Amino acid sequence: MGCKNCCSICLQCLFGYETNVMLVINNKGVGALFRLIQFLIIAYVAVYVCWIQRAYQDTDSVISSVSTKVKGNILTNTSIEGVHVWDVPEYVIPPQGEKSFLVLTNVIQTPGQTQSKCPEIPSLVTKCESDSDCIEGHTEVHGNGVQTGHCVQYSDTIKTCEVQAWCPLENDTIIPKPALLGAAEHFTVLIKNNIQYPKFSFRKRNLLHHINSTYLKNCTFDRKTDPHCPIFRLGHMVTEAGEDFSIMALKGGIIGIFIDWNCDLDFPERFCIPKYSFSRLDNKNPENNIAPGYNFRFAKYYKNNKSIETRTLIKAFGIRFDVIVFGMAGKFNIVPTIVNLGATLAFLSLVIKCLWHNHFHVVPELLPGDCYFSMETTSYGTP
Amino acid sequence: MGCKNCCSICLQCLFGYETNVMLVINNKGVGALFRLIQFLIIAYVAVYVCWIQRAYQDTDSVISSVSTKVKGNILTNTSIEGVHVWDVPEYVIPPQGEKSFLVLTNVIQTPGQTQSKCPEIPSLVTKCESDSDCIEGHTEVHGNGVQTGHCVQYSDTIKTCEVQAWCPLENDTIIPKPALLGAAEHFTVLIKNNIQYPKFSFRKRNLLHHINSTYLKNCTFDRKTDPHCPIFRLGHMVTEAGEDFSIMALKGGIIGIFIDWNCDLDFPERFCIPKYSFSRLDNKNPENNIAPGYNFRFAKYYKNNKSIETRTLIKAFGIRFDVIVFGMAGKFNIVPTIVNLGATLAFLSLVIKCLWHNHFHVVPELLPGDCYFSMETTSYGTP
Amino acid sequence: MGCKNCCSICLQCLFGYETNVMLVINNKGVGALFRLIQFLIIAYVAVYVCWIQRAYQDTDSVISSVSTKVKGNILTNTSIEGVHVWDVPEYVIPPQGEKSFLVLTNVIQTPGQTQSKCPEIPSLVTKCESDSDCIEGHTEVHGNGVQTGHCVQYSDTIKTCEVQAWCPLENDTIIPKPALLGAAEHFTVLIKNNIQYPKFSFRKRNLLHHINSTYLKNCTFDRKTDPHCPIFRLGHMVTEAGEDFSIMALKGGIIGIFIDWNCDLDFPERFCIPKYSFSRLDNKNPENNIAPGYNFRFAKYYKNNKSIETRTLIKAFGIRFDVIVFGMAGKFNIVPTIVNLGATLAFLSLVIKCLWHNHFHVVPELLPGDCYFSMETTSYGTP
Repeated sequence: MGCKNCCSICLQCLFGYETNVMLVINNKGVGALFRLIQFLIIAYVAVYVCWIQRAYQDTDSVISSVSTKVKGNILTNTSIEGVHVWDVPEYVIPPQGEKSFLVLTNVIQTPGQTQSKCPEIPSLVTKCESDSDCIEGHTEVHGNGVQTGHCVQYSDTIKTCEVQAWCPLENDTIIPKPALLGAAEHFTVLIKNNIQYPKFSFRKRNLLHHINSTYLKNCTFDRKTDPHCPIFRLGHMVTEAGEDFSIMALKGGIIGIFIDWNCDLDFPERFCIPKYSFSRLDNKNPENNIAPGYNFRFAKYYKNNKSIETRTLIKAFGIRFDVIVFGMAGKFNIVPTIVNLGATLAFLSLVIKCLWHNHFHVVPELLPGDCYFSMETTSYGTP
Repeated sequence: MGCKNCCSICLQCLFGYETNVMLVINNKGVGALFRLIQFLIIAYVAVYVCWIQRAYQDTDSVISSVSTKVKGNILTNTSIEGVHVWDVPEYVIPPQGEKSFLVLTNVIQTPGQTQSKCPEIPSLVTKCESDSDCIEGHTEVHGNGVQTGHCVQYSDTIKTCEVQAWCPLENDTIIPKPALLGAAEHFTVLIKNNIQYPKFSFRKRNLLHHINSTYLKNCTFDRKTDPHCPIFRLGHMVTEAGEDFSIMALKGGIIGIFIDWNCDLDFPERFCIPKYSFSRLDNKNPENNIAPGYNFRFAKYYKNNKSIETRTLIKAFGIRFDVIVFGMAGKFNIVPTIVNLGATLAFLSLVIKCLWHNHFHVVPELLPGDCYFSMETTSYGTP
Repeated sequence: MGCKNCCSICLQCLFGYETNVMLVINNKGVGALFRLIQFLIIAYVAVYVCWIQRAYQDTDSVISSVSTKVKGNILTNTSIEGVHVWDVPEYVIPPQGEKSFLVLTNVIQTPGQTQSKCPEIPSLVTKCESDSDCIEGHTEVHGNGVQTGHCVQYSDTIKTCEVQAWCPLENDTIIPKPALLGAAEHFTVLIKNNIQYPKFSFRKRNLLHHINSTYLKNCTFDRKTDPHCPIFRLGHMVTEAGEDFSIMALKGGIIGIFIDWNCDLDFPERFCIPKYSFSRLDNKNPENNIAPGYNFRFAKYYKNNKSIETRTLIKAFGIRFDVIVFGMAGKFNIVPTIVNLGATLAFLSLVIKCLWHNHFHVVPELLPGDCYFSMETTSYGTP
């Protein structure tokens, strides 16, 4: 008997299959409610998890490469330079069409600077009465050079500390208004963008297949009429970013050109299309801000006859355009599918079981009869 | 009795442990099938989820910093410049070794440009008969300057609209062939790449520990012989990208240098090694394309004796190399492990249960006897 | 009977609700143990999964835009140039405040270079006895030009191969020590950083709301006193990176400025604050390294009276600062919550069940009595 028992146990270990003893409650109300809940669960999984959240997909983030090319010319007429035509090599910085490019919109030029000594631009810290107010070798943080320790005439009335610097000093107190190159508004930029999702070895360009060269030569981007044209009017982008070009041109700023490559690669490749959007990235409001706008200084260096180096200092205000490419691609993959479905079902079934349990715990006398009945119907229990 | 009952219920609430009543089917066929399925599930989880998908790992994406340094000299002999040696500062743009650098391969130079007036390059839109064909102040999109409103002789036969511009205008109709700096093919570039995975505080360089300085000084990258050498021959990279350097050099283009840092950080650090690959990023085929190749214009500015600004305009065709670093690191983490295993098992057990249920629902008469028998063997049921 | 049976089965299919037949073990020890395990599971889920791993959140990675502005002046006094003041346009490369900017710290200048012929700098490969040692048209990898095939006097004692190049050649054997622009240590840089998490349409700047303009004008970053000031002293950053500025200035290097925007967006926006950190990115140790430090060459081009092009070659050693913005934002989302909770619970419950099962399998005689008793208490079993 013990042996027989033990043998049977061994057999069970190997070939025994355990299943739960189920209890069938044959109650229309409860049954209906149960089916309803089942339906809700399935609906939730199908609609929300699968359809909206695409939880059945494996994802990869975009890798991208961008090149840009600006077109346009402007004629200016200033006291310093006279009539001058600005072309791309002059107003686009850096010239080599990178994904972040700056277009000059306003300029303060200081020609003929040489290494010498001259009085500082008057300010609270640079004004002086006598040499004792100036420290030799001292460099003012917001100053233009290194002080020589002398206090010299800046104008008939004002004396300021003398500095060793590129003289004459730049005086950027007056900013040209309207912006010198305000007409840059009409320039166009061609943006070429190549992206790939290495995990799915998917590659695409923003020059879409169904667009021919002749169209590309003449189109300019417009959200409604030409949503796939990669040529953008600077003014149009600034307007879409909710800014006024003529105002922004004065002190410069940063505009983000966002290219959104979010794609569902379970659909055919042709549905994976870039979405363009524009927004201002820098902080224009003067509160909790410092040096609003966007400007920097660069210089052109010359040597005069006596081979003394002179330079033209240019304080350049401009609008920097940052092409920011982002996106996630999703493609069906068995692991996330199983993980998400499994987990969701498991979780919900647990939740239901608890609710159920707590709900029917209060009516124990319902269960036994039910059970007994169901046991009978399935010819169960005692033989 | 009611009290005793209620008490026992209370006790149950606190200390009662509920377990399912299991039913043991002692049937070799079914049991074997059951064991088989169990094995399949475990196999699936072990092999696919764990091994292939590494679903037990937490992941982090790479943060990287790149610096590059090109080496090489070229001697050219042109009508404009005569014999001229090009060195790095002249043909690498920008010079400061960034992760995206351009190597000039072809050049159209227009020396001695000054701000003045001259006839436009003939084209459909610039040709004219009389001044009435030219609009003063008009800027042609593809033109070189701002029209003065006059129609002047371009050559004996052709009249074109006069423009205010940097004159003489550049004539880029003829591109030097073969490429002026085609020999750039033999240049080498040293790429230094530092990466880190902040989440795992893991840092590494593409100059691997086991490589010594002397080797680095002389090696050049080769997939077979020198897969870890960070010095690349430009020609070699272009060839690996499936392009012909001499052809690409004519009009320029963009080559992506991909450095793949995908690492399994559960393995020792030394197994985390960069994989290099190369591919052309820009669209070379003329269909659905615009301005194929890669070119841009920049200028060198001079002042002559009368301190009038002149410049040499350079239309530069070049190959831009974008170093694109990407990768994901994975490391064991308990949460994704539990989540993935749990979810997978839960899902599969649900699936099995359904199949099983539906399969055995048709043979109810099997169950009871089985059940009863199993109850007996485990000394179950009536005492 | 068969019909009645079949009907009931059909009804069950539609309205029948199946639940497990539970067996209540009424045993204080077991019950307590069971409750303890339940508690542990909940504790684990609550503390680890939810609190530490924030597994209930959906995540998005940061998109950022950076602009920088350096301030400061240095006075140098060299034999070549005499007294010279360096200002931002001269020592910051590129000038247009990008997220990766280089500050010159040491310079080797070679003025008055023209295209001509001159003897190579002596080295093992360039020294020669007769013309036969030099190959016409040969370019030495580490050389400065293209050999003419002649062997000429470099000095009274040394003969080297003549090269066509920008002559006189640069001699960079002696690096100025201390660094010419070592005082760059005291320069400050303003870093403006705008980030966004598109998935949560969350945008923020590193110029925080609660900071006013006057503070920003005068503060400099300090981890303790001014942790939110976006103005950094170069020397301070290098020190925080664990380097000595004066030493690093000699040969240059790369410093990473890491801005960590990891945010829990379930908390109010004001808690999402950038964390700054600094570390050296390039490899300074001479072993398994090549060309340590960071340097590059660029040139200023001039034309002399006879309009012959001359240039000043500048070998620039500098510290490149790479602003590297990274971060992940998390926000509550129902899907990951359900997935993670569900999966975790499912997994743990499976684990428990197995342990339990194996543990109580050895004491079958415990179960029946228990079972029978519990059946009685719940008025179960035989009617």
